[in-house]
Amino acid sequence: MRLLILLFCSLLFTAPAFAQDKIFNAESFTLDNGMRVVSIPNHRAPVVTHMVWYRVGAADEAPGQSGIAHFVEHLMFKGSENVPPGEFSKRVRALGGNDNAFTAQDYTAYFQSIAVENLETVMTMEADRMKGLLFPEEGILSERNVVVEERRQRTENDPRGYFFEQMRAMLFVNHPYGNPVIGWFHELDILNKEAVQSFYKKWYAPNNALLIVSGDITMKELRPLAEKTYGLLPSRDVPERQWTEVPPLLGKPHLTLHHPTIRQSSLTRLYRMPSYQQNKDDSLALQVLESIMSDGSTSRFYKSLVVEKKLATGIQFSYNASAFSDGTATLSATPADGISLEKLDKTLDDEWRKLLTGGVTAEELRSAKDRMQDAAIFARDSLAGPAMIFGHELITGTTIDDVEYWPQMIESVTAEQIQDVANRFLNPDNRDKKPYVTGYLLPQEEEQGEGETE
Amino acid sequence: MRLLILLFCSLLFTAPAFAQDKIFNAESFTLDNGMRVVSIPNHRAPVVTHMVWYRVGAADEAPGQSGIAHFVEHLMFKGSENVPPGEFSKRVRALGGNDNAFTAQDYTAYFQSIAVENLETVMTMEADRMKGLLFPEEGILSERNVVVEERRQRTENDPRGYFFEQMRAMLFVNHPYGNPVIGWFHELDILNKEAVQSFYKKWYAPNNALLIVSGDITMKELRPLAEKTYGLLPSRDVPERQWTEVPPLLGKPHLTLHHPTIRQSSLTRLYRMPSYQQNKDDSLALQVLESIMSDGSTSRFYKSLVVEKKLATGIQFSYNASAFSDGTATLSATPADGISLEKLDKTLDDEWRKLLTGGVTAEELRSAKDRMQDAAIFARDSLAGPAMIFGHELITGTTIDDVEYWPQMIESVTAEQIQDVANRFLNPDNRDKKPYVTGYLLPQEEEQGEGETE
Repeated sequence: MRLLILLFCSLLFTAPAFAQDKIFNAESFTLDNGMRVVSIPNHRAPVVTHMVWYRVGAADEAPGQSGIAHFVEHLMFKGSENVPPGEFSKRVRALGGNDNAFTAQDYTAYFQSIAVENLETVMTMEADRMKGLLFPEEGILSERNVVVEERRQRTENDPRGYFFEQMRAMLFVNHPYGNPVIGWFHELDILNKEAVQSFYKKWYAPNNALLIVSGDITMKELRPLAEKTYGLLPSRDVPERQWTEVPPLLGKPHLTLHHPTIRQSSLTRLYRMPSYQQNKDDSLALQVLESIMSDGSTSRFYKSLVVEKKLATGIQFSYNASAFSDGTATLSATPADGISLEKLDKTLDDEWRKLLTGGVTAEELRSAKDRMQDAAIFARDSLAGPAMIFGHELITGTTIDDVEYWPQMIESVTAEQIQDVANRFLNPDNRDKKPYVTGYLLPQEEEQGEGETE
Repeated sequence: MRLLILLFCSLLFTAPAFAQDKIFNAESFTLDNGMRVVSIPNHRAPVVTHMVWYRVGAADEAPGQSGIAHFVEHLMFKGSENVPPGEFSKRVRALGGNDNAFTAQDYTAYFQSIAVENLETVMTMEADRMKGLLFPEEGILSERNVVVEERRQRTENDPRGYFFEQMRAMLFVNHPYGNPVIGWFHELDILNKEAVQSFYKKWYAPNNALLIVSGDITMKELRPLAEKTYGLLPSRDVPERQWTEVPPLLGKPHLTLHHPTIRQSSLTRLYRMPSYQQNKDDSLALQVLESIMSDGSTSRFYKSLVVEKKLATGIQFSYNASAFSDGTATLSATPADGISLEKLDKTLDDEWRKLLTGGVTAEELRSAKDRMQDAAIFARDSLAGPAMIFGHELITGTTIDDVEYWPQMIESVTAEQIQDVANRFLNPDNRDKKPYVTGYLLPQEEEQGEGETE
């Protein structure tokens, strides 16, 4: 009961005036060493998801050291002071839980899902590897082979992986997002103990980390656990993130890739977009636009290109708003039999033009908002989902309130705003202002006839 | 007479066994502080060209500091200990000479052409600005505006400049050559006193510089001058150049740029190639190939595309071998009236295929070698030319002998070697191994009809 009253008070004092309901009722405080702690209650089962997010990722790598953030992520399982090499995951599994980690351009995250009674144990272990890794010479060499193999499978042996990597490099000129998270193949071999150790020491500090625990826990319970684990680590100087910016790009960059293992041609457009933290209003409008264009069988692209015109068998437009720097949008389509990529490409332009002149209908707008708001409510029921959402958002600069009141903010997006962002960022007749990279991925045999199949 | 004997002796002792005649008879020694000194005699007139080349250029810039090498070049005219701001060029002109400077990816060079009697004066001044620049706050701000204006004229206001900049960025993924020498516009503004000062201190040391004097001077005369000017400066620690490498690039990157100020469409292919210092034999074969394909009205490309097929009004293939890292080749063509760039593009492929299957004739080979060897002999007569040649070559890792015996090395190139390098680096049917960027530069009005004008 005391808890309920506390929660109610906190709602009263922190909720902004426009608020109706929060989605998650997350709470947050910051340890003395600067590490932020977030709890997201969900008491359906006595389990928790425990995540530590570091504000460091592939985009923070020095030139020539691509892949080092991801490599350090691997080495986090190779032993720390009180956890021998390879023991971390074994112990989590022995406790009935599971764990994993992932690296992106903006962050590196570690998580365990586990019975709440074992939370303190995993927090102790996670704090141990935040405090000091072992970096055993042998473990580094063997893990480097693992990473090289990972890259080979995902990229060297998968033209799709290669294709997107190359398109990103073309879009993100002079920007760290242009390098692949896994690292360029030829740079993986030079990652050595000294380099990974110095990267780890530079960035792995409690004041550069975010703790999120979702599940059967309250902040009252989490706080002392955080204090006696992460709270014991001293804060350290962590450099400001300094990333270079993409220069204005004029013209139309295009990549064609023919590959013998590709059976089905496809077309992809990669756009650079404002992220949520760069422009909140634009980003919200783009999120609704994404839903109208591409969410489900009644979405514009699907209805027009797949159902009515039968030019495509599949089409997807997805906008990624959560980025510390620029966001992106991807438009991918698979042509129907006998339809060339050039023809499909032009039809996509027509679809955008239709939107630019006609706008979206009140019905489309309502239905998109309903879908999005329902999804937000649905997300609440998941155990790991909310931790993932808050991690992604907070680590890229979004606030807790931005997450909690997202349905209300989506509600405020107007049809005019959507038309406006489409015009500024997706207008095919104004590409010099907002260029995108177009990619054609094709089977080998079509090579000679390229451009003449229409 | 004594000089002649000395010169003769030095020839006897340094000339390799295969040598016939040296072109320039350059001599070289190294000052105690590590600065290399080269003299190239030409006694036709009592004048000299004095050049100092620094082994630092745009490719050495840190991320986010593009343009700093070129900016420091500008600041070298803004005053040093004994030469007040703006005085350097004035003094050279007052002595009847002229001076200038230039920055490239690999180097930064300063030169004066002047009466030999004033050589010591300019050497004293040049050594003064090697020793210590003033970096006056006001001069930095005003010069930054000059550089911004320079960039605006060359790039922002010239679609051709922009077009090549963007193509280079697409070719040199993950490589410093992908950044423009003048710097990205948005990064020029952040170059401040601290940044330029630290760049200058890091790289401007005598042991990172090369002195070349060509003209009415002997090494015997030059040596004491060098010793009492540059020789007085202490050597300093200069970092190793560490540049990242281009990852393997599959597929076909393409850039289309429509611009209202373009009247005549053109097509450009930009290739990455082995430089001379990366592969001497390949580079020599590529140099002869360049001459066969593109040198003069009897060259292959001109004869076939301009004279016989009348598909182009102009065409040029040029190979740049002098690079500290990768070399490049550029193939540019202007279509004849009514010919689309797509059509021209395919014809270029056909020309390469013809070479790959048929090779070059003995006559073509002989005639190219003759032209090149004549040009080398002709180069000897120029005053500033030899200093430029040696500067370019030595600073990118070529030896004096490589320059002196270039005609003999060209002579040794065979038709088989030419076919082999064409196959490995220019084969249009093997692009995944050696990709190039293709660019179409077009007038604005053609935009809608693109790809359909054939």
